[in-house]
Amino acid sequence: MNIYADNAATTKMSPAAIDAMLPYFDKIYGNPSSLHSPGQRAAEALEQARETIAQTLGCGAKELYFTSGGSEADNQALLSAAAIGERKGKKHIISSSIEHHAVLHTLERLKKRGFEITLLDAHENGIVRPEELAEALRPDTVLVSVMYANNEIGTLQPISELGKLCRERGVLFHTDAVQAVGHVKINVAEENIDLLSLSAHKFHGPKGVGALYARKGIVLTNLIDGGAQERGKRAGTENLPAIVGMAAALREAAGQLEEATAKLLPLRDRLISGLLEIPHTVLNGDAKLRLPGNVNVCFEGIEGESLLLLLDQKGIAASSGSACTSGSLDPSHVLLAIGRPHEIAHGSLRLSLSEENTPEEIAYMISSIREVVAYLRGMSTVWRDLQEGKRSYVIQ
Amino acid sequence: MNIYADNAATTKMSPAAIDAMLPYFDKIYGNPSSLHSPGQRAAEALEQARETIAQTLGCGAKELYFTSGGSEADNQALLSAAAIGERKGKKHIISSSIEHHAVLHTLERLKKRGFEITLLDAHENGIVRPEELAEALRPDTVLVSVMYANNEIGTLQPISELGKLCRERGVLFHTDAVQAVGHVKINVAEENIDLLSLSAHKFHGPKGVGALYARKGIVLTNLIDGGAQERGKRAGTENLPAIVGMAAALREAAGQLEEATAKLLPLRDRLISGLLEIPHTVLNGDAKLRLPGNVNVCFEGIEGESLLLLLDQKGIAASSGSACTSGSLDPSHVLLAIGRPHEIAHGSLRLSLSEENTPEEIAYMISSIREVVAYLRGMSTVWRDLQEGKRSYVIQ
Repeated sequence: MNIYADNAATTKMSPAAIDAMLPYFDKIYGNPSSLHSPGQRAAEALEQARETIAQTLGCGAKELYFTSGGSEADNQALLSAAAIGERKGKKHIISSSIEHHAVLHTLERLKKRGFEITLLDAHENGIVRPEELAEALRPDTVLVSVMYANNEIGTLQPISELGKLCRERGVLFHTDAVQAVGHVKINVAEENIDLLSLSAHKFHGPKGVGALYARKGIVLTNLIDGGAQERGKRAGTENLPAIVGMAAALREAAGQLEEATAKLLPLRDRLISGLLEIPHTVLNGDAKLRLPGNVNVCFEGIEGESLLLLLDQKGIAASSGSACTSGSLDPSHVLLAIGRPHEIAHGSLRLSLSEENTPEEIAYMISSIREVVAYLRGMSTVWRDLQEGKRSYVIQ
Repeated sequence: MNIYADNAATTKMSPAAIDAMLPYFDKIYGNPSSLHSPGQRAAEALEQARETIAQTLGCGAKELYFTSGGSEADNQALLSAAAIGERKGKKHIISSSIEHHAVLHTLERLKKRGFEITLLDAHENGIVRPEELAEALRPDTVLVSVMYANNEIGTLQPISELGKLCRERGVLFHTDAVQAVGHVKINVAEENIDLLSLSAHKFHGPKGVGALYARKGIVLTNLIDGGAQERGKRAGTENLPAIVGMAAALREAAGQLEEATAKLLPLRDRLISGLLEIPHTVLNGDAKLRLPGNVNVCFEGIEGESLLLLLDQKGIAASSGSACTSGSLDPSHVLLAIGRPHEIAHGSLRLSLSEENTPEEIAYMISSIREVVAYLRGMSTVWRDLQEGKRSYVIQ
């Protein structure tokens, strides 16, 4: 059995998205900036795609800027807000301890430019608290950036409440919604979101394309200077095939959101309860306030990497956390942030499901993981020490 | 007849490039950073593509960094060199007056950071002179950036000589080779190139992908922070389908370079001579030292935009200059730089051919353009004034 359970890392493109893209490779291939008919046909498709995506998010088409993906959108959102802050003499930014590195590393860069950064605690359940944001907001706060859904533990943040607080205080609110768009219902106007990042390959669209929503009136700073594309805010010939594919994938995902969620939730919850039957296993992140496809657990006494390799041999493609940091020996900053000790954080497993996963696959994953965890614990000196009482269990 | 003669703006993807991409949408779709087998298959394809492109350029695979396109590569090359300069206290950069805006606008930004910029003259033939570079080089020069081939007038710069001068003086040498890669033979080692930008959609590859070559030892500065992709120098999930498509397109282009050039040169030269038979018409850029597919002329007494629209009605997709600045009312900075007066620069026409264009198309373009130019001149007050001696001709 071959099971793909790493949809938070990337997804398989949907047939609808592929079909939408194909004509743009060798039929409607003009440069959207060109005045001639092939160019104008391309320009129309570009604006149609922008309109489709805008409608799904509840914003205006002119509030969308296409990028090469979620990381670029995150970088541009934060650097743009920082430039606005510098012009206003506001150099305080609030974010959370469980953000993606595209946000955290950009904040590190901004620190060197003189910004003060406050990271909100995500607590044991992996969710920030609006009242703690309210306390952290200052007169010199220019931006709050809190992700919509966490990429490792899938927890959903109270975006509407955070957005409302920011709007009341006149502070810009950015959300990295890379893991959320296409998976949960989002309306930027209703949720008081000023800036939002998304990435197509997380919802069965193509790789290499994403978008930054920036509310009307917010002046973006270019990461890439040059041509007048994207209203002068992002130079480079538009990646039209991918943009069209992204729009098709998002329209499809939004159209079947309820159906997909209804299918995924029981699969996710069955998988979680099956894994929690393994002794000394803990769920990471809130059990309910999480993405419908996200499962993330820690098994005491084993190494996540060995677990992944043995599961791979059984045909299960899973992850220990973010794909962006795999290969790194450091434990996940997200798991540490929600209070998991180093030794536990190392034994993490993320299974991120899509609508294509079946109940049979869930059953196979539970039995395979149970078997592999037992095997690895049989060889683990840490586990032996725990059994012999030389160490104490962290997970009770 | 429908003729696409705007290949400098963008090209139709080749069947080989499309075929190469397709499996990576829904079969080999893993994230190359993932440890599991689907991820590792993707990682292998990524490195194979890198190897293919490196071989074509004559560099090491580890000297290639994939980007979202040529503009991003140009921006990153210049900002990286600037950061190196700042660390060494060298804040002088030499470039040329006919660079793409991705270079010129980035230089503008660097000026604000305290860099001094010297722009080499491109003279009437659109080509910079190595002896003028030799004179311009200073002890505090950190970077020379001169494009390989101009995007409007197609002129080929004396890259080897410029590279040699830079290497002798220990100055970094970047070339924006977006218009050249896949169209002329390039070897970065032999030509002493330290940094080179390329874009796939200019050689029948996909849009939204390019690369930056940076010679071993040159430390790049990130435009996009976050994940560890591209050896930590460019965050974001790799756009694997497009990267594989780019490698296939480049391999194909490099393999048939001589054949394509042999086919294009007579087409180009026939088109140029046919257009120069129209009175008061001038060729922009050197007649021989230009890309095999590039034709760029100015017709006195007409507006380029009207010309384009009427040609479009005749099924000819052409351009007045760079697609990136179309819609702008300013005349081309390149044409002004090579000494064309404003009134002439406005009447420019760029026809950029590919191997798919035929002798019949060339004949049709010549007759159509002759007809349209005559028609527009018949309505032009400027042309009437010239005929009546109230103005004098600029083009003799």
